[in-house]
Amino acid sequence: MEKLVSSPSPVSPLGGHLLGEIFAREIHEQPEALRRLLEHEDDYAALARVIDERAPALIRLVGHGSSDNAATYGVYAFGLLPRLTAVRDSISLSVYYDAALDFSSSVVLALSQSGRTPDVVEYVKRARARGAFTVALTNGSGSELEQAADATLPLAAGPEFAVAATKTYLNQLAAIALLAGGIAGRGPELADGLRATADLLSQSLYPLEAAVRPVATSFAYVGRMYAIGRGLEFATAREVALKLTESCRIAAGPLTATDLAHGPVAALDSLFPVWTIASRDESLPAVIEAATRVRDAGATIVASGSAAGEIDASYTLPVPVAPSPLLAPLLSVVPGQLFAATLAQVKGYDADKPVGLNKVTIAR
Amino acid sequence: MEKLVSSPSPVSPLGGHLLGEIFAREIHEQPEALRRLLEHEDDYAALARVIDERAPALIRLVGHGSSDNAATYGVYAFGLLPRLTAVRDSISLSVYYDAALDFSSSVVLALSQSGRTPDVVEYVKRARARGAFTVALTNGSGSELEQAADATLPLAAGPEFAVAATKTYLNQLAAIALLAGGIAGRGPELADGLRATADLLSQSLYPLEAAVRPVATSFAYVGRMYAIGRGLEFATAREVALKLTESCRIAAGPLTATDLAHGPVAALDSLFPVWTIASRDESLPAVIEAATRVRDAGATIVASGSAAGEIDASYTLPVPVAPSPLLAPLLSVVPGQLFAATLAQVKGYDADKPVGLNKVTIAR
Repeated sequence: MEKLVSSPSPVSPLGGHLLGEIFAREIHEQPEALRRLLEHEDDYAALARVIDERAPALIRLVGHGSSDNAATYGVYAFGLLPRLTAVRDSISLSVYYDAALDFSSSVVLALSQSGRTPDVVEYVKRARARGAFTVALTNGSGSELEQAADATLPLAAGPEFAVAATKTYLNQLAAIALLAGGIAGRGPELADGLRATADLLSQSLYPLEAAVRPVATSFAYVGRMYAIGRGLEFATAREVALKLTESCRIAAGPLTATDLAHGPVAALDSLFPVWTIASRDESLPAVIEAATRVRDAGATIVASGSAAGEIDASYTLPVPVAPSPLLAPLLSVVPGQLFAATLAQVKGYDADKPVGLNKVTIAR
Repeated sequence: MEKLVSSPSPVSPLGGHLLGEIFAREIHEQPEALRRLLEHEDDYAALARVIDERAPALIRLVGHGSSDNAATYGVYAFGLLPRLTAVRDSISLSVYYDAALDFSSSVVLALSQSGRTPDVVEYVKRARARGAFTVALTNGSGSELEQAADATLPLAAGPEFAVAATKTYLNQLAAIALLAGGIAGRGPELADGLRATADLLSQSLYPLEAAVRPVATSFAYVGRMYAIGRGLEFATAREVALKLTESCRIAAGPLTATDLAHGPVAALDSLFPVWTIASRDESLPAVIEAATRVRDAGATIVASGSAAGEIDASYTLPVPVAPSPLLAPLLSVVPGQLFAATLAQVKGYDADKPVGLNKVTIAR
């Protein structure tokens, strides 16, 4: 924590810690974190070759919280780039029930910021013992997870001090895209795309922050929300919902645009706003259709993403078009992060250290 | 809908339709529905042999809403019985993005009450074209899903008229257990267990209904809840959350006991009750640990399941111990169904036909 104390930080007029200042600063550090990851491009390329040579039947992704949301992105990145089936695997099946599954043609990608999440470490040990090739993707150099796995990829996000993950989530998405791209023989193309994404992020963070403030202010008394997305952007819906929950104490549930229609739409009313992620890709028609259903139910819509303008919304927070649709989630998540940071301040909560949470979750 | 009109049904003192009467009746029809499924035991055994001979590398489960919740159960049933890796597959990856995945060593189990869910039907067509062996599990005889798949298993739940699924969900769990048991060479054992489960259900439904009423009444003004479970009972947490959302307009989010600690616990307070499913199996310690965390956050706990008594809860709704831990979710879901039915009545909502929903969801 020494670095935190010595780093320059905004000081409140009263000389104390500003609510959520670390969280806000780390949101702004994301372009830099992304560029830092790209310094390890060769490590990713090398491990991609190792994985490609194994020709795995299945990529098993595991993680909790934001890491699990990044795993959701992995399902699409591995499916669309090297055309590999990837799944968010059940941890409890291996760790609690000790199910004797065949892992011999599986590659495990274990996601943990700290590298210390107990049941992720335990899962990796068991998967490896059952024949999986296990890869740790972590910010925690020298961690238990790194020791348990066959190989490690550096997340390289730099120290993250706010409890709510931001730059580690963004770098997890980038790492997954880089690895999946490498296996598909498209590593350099993805790396170039990520570099361009870092530039787009740098350019858009401050204007987005200004655009978010008046919207967040009007949500001071909102107690429940949904965040909807589809396909590649379902990961974003999950991550935005988690930020709103942990930072702003809103009961924010993530839903695919389609699942909204299978029940939850019945709960909507004017006091139940819906955060909608709309990006310009093949899933956009489903998202537009869901947004129409939300509006018909009388709920307020906040639309974000590169195609936010396509949604008939009360509030629109567009982001730049990503270098490829596959990288859109790295930009789409930012309005949600900034909204959570601002709304937490408005509500008087400290997003740096929400009540009841620690940076390293040791819960099983 | 003619059968609905001609079937015996409770009549209100005023001669009209009682709120949620169909939903309540169908909850009570579950033992009968379960026994009806068991009449098809031989069909399940025959298809289990076909699947076993193919020695699939992966079971891909797809469905929306309650069917997707049943798929969550399938991950555990296939993992624990025939030790096969089963996943809730991404529908959008195939249907929207047309990802060229290898399905040649996959078996698809497509879950749809009506057999008419458009993107489930489309998924089956594409998976089959890419080499999967596809199985439709549906209540909708002669449906599009049945026509699209290589084989069909009857759900045999009988007509379900309430929009919120109950007996079709229960039969989906039973069908999955029977099929997974058959592949493991344990079909008759599972069938016996399901028969015993039907008897336990018959005995416990009315006492449970009486026990649920005073609890539900005190939740009349609750706007948000979590439902937590782990392992086999995570499916139950998802299904109870969906019933509460669609029938009672509560923002009820499902969480694994572990994910609660990775963020959402920060949102809890005394106005944010948590429905906890505690069954006597290997995941129980994790659930007890999570419940302690919930209580420390000041939230009210309702504990259900066979090990509900192990939880320090404000309200306890225990169910009988199932013939095997694997069948516990068939009993654990019932208090949640009855709670949703009663609470909807208390709030003046018609659980038979929630606003904005239809029995067959045609949304993409």
